[in-house]
Amino acid sequence: MNNSSPLDRILIVLSHPSHPGNIGAAARAMKAMGLRRLVLVNPRHFPDAQADAMAAGATDVLAAAKVCASLQEALAATVFATAVTARRRELAVTPLWARDAASELVSLPGEGDVALVFGNETAGLSNEEVGLCRRWTTIPTSAAHSSLNLAQAVQVMCYELHLAAVDPGAPPKVAEAGQAANLEEVEAFLSHLERVVIGSGFLDPQIPKRLMPRMRRLFARAGLEREEINILRGMLASFEKKT
Amino acid sequence: MNNSSPLDRILIVLSHPSHPGNIGAAARAMKAMGLRRLVLVNPRHFPDAQADAMAAGATDVLAAAKVCASLQEALAATVFATAVTARRRELAVTPLWARDAASELVSLPGEGDVALVFGNETAGLSNEEVGLCRRWTTIPTSAAHSSLNLAQAVQVMCYELHLAAVDPGAPPKVAEAGQAANLEEVEAFLSHLERVVIGSGFLDPQIPKRLMPRMRRLFARAGLEREEINILRGMLASFEKKT
Repeated sequence: MNNSSPLDRILIVLSHPSHPGNIGAAARAMKAMGLRRLVLVNPRHFPDAQADAMAAGATDVLAAAKVCASLQEALAATVFATAVTARRRELAVTPLWARDAASELVSLPGEGDVALVFGNETAGLSNEEVGLCRRWTTIPTSAAHSSLNLAQAVQVMCYELHLAAVDPGAPPKVAEAGQAANLEEVEAFLSHLERVVIGSGFLDPQIPKRLMPRMRRLFARAGLEREEINILRGMLASFEKKT
Repeated sequence: MNNSSPLDRILIVLSHPSHPGNIGAAARAMKAMGLRRLVLVNPRHFPDAQADAMAAGATDVLAAAKVCASLQEALAATVFATAVTARRRELAVTPLWARDAASELVSLPGEGDVALVFGNETAGLSNEEVGLCRRWTTIPTSAAHSSLNLAQAVQVMCYELHLAAVDPGAPPKVAEAGQAANLEEVEAFLSHLERVVIGSGFLDPQIPKRLMPRMRRLFARAGLEREEINILRGMLASFEKKT
């Protein structure tokens, strides 16, 4: 595959999912985050119209999903797998937080598929299933209420995988961001404003208090653009005429 | 409120949600991440049995949800609001990535409620609605397919808010993690192993190749525990008897 991404080797494995809506929502979550390889172990209903509906534009992920009879079969060709589970387990392996697991999965050296394994909505993963995974991963939640829906857990993990694999860079450019005003323009505006409020009688130059420093602070925070200054000064000029 | 968290002042606002299942899933996502204040602007169906079903253990969040007739009403008492939107907008304000928005929301100085605003499943937020928010926020997604389900977007933002507000600390303790073996015990085991494989004829001490360095590397990676060494040496002793 050209332009291969570390996400290309990652399988999202759902073991014994009961609700087809969750399968569809998981596919949608995957595709939005750049993951495409869904593996289903003994899904109760699949294919299914509800899965298609919840997948929205990600029905191609569903169509390409691999269905297996057991987790062992699903993981047979993988070189690394981590179980995603909220339950404390009697396992002598320290779990990973979601963010750390994502960064480990996308930076694993070598070749071969790697898997993130999610359990059934109600029963979770069995100890035998967790035993097939080299690590286990936990999504940080409120201590009082740690219950995440299956599709939501898939969403969080795919989001973390996406961020671990793809530097989002700077936030998207704003189409209509204007040219920032320079200091001279800002100062000319503030002088204009001061002149007008003195003219209107709002500001007494003998007792100026903190009015202009506060205006200066306000417009500094806003970061004025040239066009905005033109508008503001146009307003001020219209007030001057009136007074 | 005692032990107040920065999450206590955060409102999750869903504007014109069409599908009650999304309202329930959003409530569940909120509660799992320690958020509790849901505001619904003109929900198509609410209260609703499907919302309750999707909320699972978070029906208390639904019961406490505030329903408003307009976004303006929902945000009236807030001191800061950010719109969550995937669409590029013609707004002269640079958007925030989800993670940065979360850290800004939980660290805002001063008092008063702050809001994260999500739009309708199909239409998103109107420009007028976005205009009521001081900032806008985008969840990083695949460039090819940026479509997130409403409840999934709420889940990602609540997850980021949780992490921004609550240091998850070290991963959960493993109940059955044993006592790590010390170097002397590891070396005694490796010597024992070497003795046994020489005794069995598997290792020729005249042509040792890389067998023992490789075994040393393998067990170093595993991080042996004392109890495991006892078991392994018991096995070795049983092999010695046989040979």
